[in-house]
Amino acid sequence: MSTGFFRSRWVDPPADTALLDPGDLPEGFRAGGVAAGLKPDGGPDLGGIVCDAESVTSAILLTDNAAAAAPVQLCRNDLDGSAIKAAVVNSGNANAATGEQGLADARAFRDGFASGLGLAPNLVAVAETGVIGVPLQLGKLEAALPSLIESLSDSGAAGFTEAIMTTDRWPKSCTAELGGVTLSAQAKGAGMIQPGFATMLCFIQTDAVIPEPAELLRSSVAESFERITVDGQSSTNDTVLLQASGASGRELPSGLLEAVTLQLALEIVADGEGAERVGRVEVRGAASVTEAEEVARGIANSLLVKTALFGRDPNWGRIVQAAGTVLAGEDLTHLGPDSVEADELGEDGSEVEVAIDLARGDESRHCYFSDLGHGYVEINAEYTT
Amino acid sequence: MSTGFFRSRWVDPPADTALLDPGDLPEGFRAGGVAAGLKPDGGPDLGGIVCDAESVTSAILLTDNAAAAAPVQLCRNDLDGSAIKAAVVNSGNANAATGEQGLADARAFRDGFASGLGLAPNLVAVAETGVIGVPLQLGKLEAALPSLIESLSDSGAAGFTEAIMTTDRWPKSCTAELGGVTLSAQAKGAGMIQPGFATMLCFIQTDAVIPEPAELLRSSVAESFERITVDGQSSTNDTVLLQASGASGRELPSGLLEAVTLQLALEIVADGEGAERVGRVEVRGAASVTEAEEVARGIANSLLVKTALFGRDPNWGRIVQAAGTVLAGEDLTHLGPDSVEADELGEDGSEVEVAIDLARGDESRHCYFSDLGHGYVEINAEYTT
Repeated sequence: MSTGFFRSRWVDPPADTALLDPGDLPEGFRAGGVAAGLKPDGGPDLGGIVCDAESVTSAILLTDNAAAAAPVQLCRNDLDGSAIKAAVVNSGNANAATGEQGLADARAFRDGFASGLGLAPNLVAVAETGVIGVPLQLGKLEAALPSLIESLSDSGAAGFTEAIMTTDRWPKSCTAELGGVTLSAQAKGAGMIQPGFATMLCFIQTDAVIPEPAELLRSSVAESFERITVDGQSSTNDTVLLQASGASGRELPSGLLEAVTLQLALEIVADGEGAERVGRVEVRGAASVTEAEEVARGIANSLLVKTALFGRDPNWGRIVQAAGTVLAGEDLTHLGPDSVEADELGEDGSEVEVAIDLARGDESRHCYFSDLGHGYVEINAEYTT
Repeated sequence: MSTGFFRSRWVDPPADTALLDPGDLPEGFRAGGVAAGLKPDGGPDLGGIVCDAESVTSAILLTDNAAAAAPVQLCRNDLDGSAIKAAVVNSGNANAATGEQGLADARAFRDGFASGLGLAPNLVAVAETGVIGVPLQLGKLEAALPSLIESLSDSGAAGFTEAIMTTDRWPKSCTAELGGVTLSAQAKGAGMIQPGFATMLCFIQTDAVIPEPAELLRSSVAESFERITVDGQSSTNDTVLLQASGASGRELPSGLLEAVTLQLALEIVADGEGAERVGRVEVRGAASVTEAEEVARGIANSLLVKTALFGRDPNWGRIVQAAGTVLAGEDLTHLGPDSVEADELGEDGSEVEVAIDLARGDESRHCYFSDLGHGYVEINAEYTT
């Protein structure tokens, strides 16, 4: 299963956007991936990206989960977030809830990659994903770093994407070109996805000139990764990194980053653990944006709505009831069948739109969610510590 | 499957409590149930309870879901909650999101029962449960009211209990005696259960003298029905009713109501749609009671923890991660394996205790939750509007 880039009904890329080979990177970047032996199946589990341009600008967003993993703590406390040259990732061990040793391991992992590239450590981001609470097998990672650095190439994005996958059923990446600017992105997703901060990991590279990338990344993420939910959980390890080499000498075309991040966010929700269908819920007529947002999340996270999406049950009553749960103490007794659009729930499409009009005001908000079926139970009851 | 009364490891009834036939009612009460034809299978779906004592005292708690059903609105607005003589229930149609017609139907349903018993309508509670958003088949109910009234007897609690079931796998009721006081209770549960207000429907009768039952009921519910969660959703129809006939001339023995309501609450969570195991999560070392409560609920509602309970996976990392989701922005990076007790998750017991020590203060709180397995998906993907 793959949703395919720019094929979602909800993604509207700028006119004339061209898709390149998703293995290709914008000018100034190299990436790659190798197997360090952390994954039981021996698959690729160590990836790296480096920007060789002098003038790189960057922005990074990190999870706000209170039990943030060691690599997230390291990026918060010892990283120049506006000038990140490189990133190193392992997909075998989240290095979360691992205490002081975990922090020391994350630092050594990062420093090893920085040293091999001849970079200052505080210009290198580190991300880790996988099992929580198990000490990092640092020796295996350190032993594999030379071959990772050897593997880095300007067409290495596919290898990098494969190396950051965990329970993902397909690699999530794309490279797009518009107006002489190239932008590529690689993401991994699957479980523990929710709005508020959603992607597990996403790395974005462009040869555009972006003097102030932080606000651009934040607004783009707000409409993409923060609009999706798989299971209402935020991860200990969520990270989104944007790097701009400036090599094209051009500005980033409007809408390109937004389309790419929304597409990858939708692929993540479509690949929500065991998911078969993606829903989009729009809450209209809310008294405030906050209310619209909270009700949309409440509906998207309702197990009863998620199982209705799986079961092709156009059960509008469950949407009303979920809204009523969020707005406990308020009055929604005026809502009836005409307040809800739920017909698509009962149809066979892979992308399903539902909507509810609260008739309390003029604000609206939407989010995207996965269904809940037997695949979710199988993956999560059997995925082991 | 039945957990059996007073057999839960978490229920501690007063010494010398005796169990009577759960069909028997305390002195002064009659109950019964019949089939009105609302349920497709033709099973019992209409139940009633009446207290014949002059001096009845009562208290009622209703859902705070904003989309409260018509019977809940009626009980809020046109019921003398401290002197409820009778209650009528249908289990075929929730009469929720049914607008003005639903309200008129609920009123006619209640008035018909009141009239047949010769009672003032505002002394009769009405509760309804079942499908949301479908007009009530009032004619069928009205036609069956005479046979319902005919069926009422002092040993009719079993018939009443059966008549209020929906997706319940077993009837939930008990009659207990202590110190010359009898207390009986009947509940239905299954889906849409969460703390904050949890049972679908529960009716409690006693021949004790209870001059001020409201606070007693509230404190008892706070430690029972508000401590359980199946799917994080509050129902549009939740109702708990306590009636005291005073016929024994005695006070209610301390702890009896608490034990009965906790037992029935645990049976409801054990019968959470498709559930196989019940978890009890205790959050210790919280900075405040509110924090302990929110973290306990967050863990109990985490799909990852619920699937771990189903899959017998002692995955303590998911408990840390769920706590971190609730306390987003705070610092829980000091938590490690020693902060969590999760071994029972991996064992075979039907009642499983887990705990986490946040090491942030001295407050603690607990709640009970069901697992999430294939049974949940089957029931909820196939239960239709």
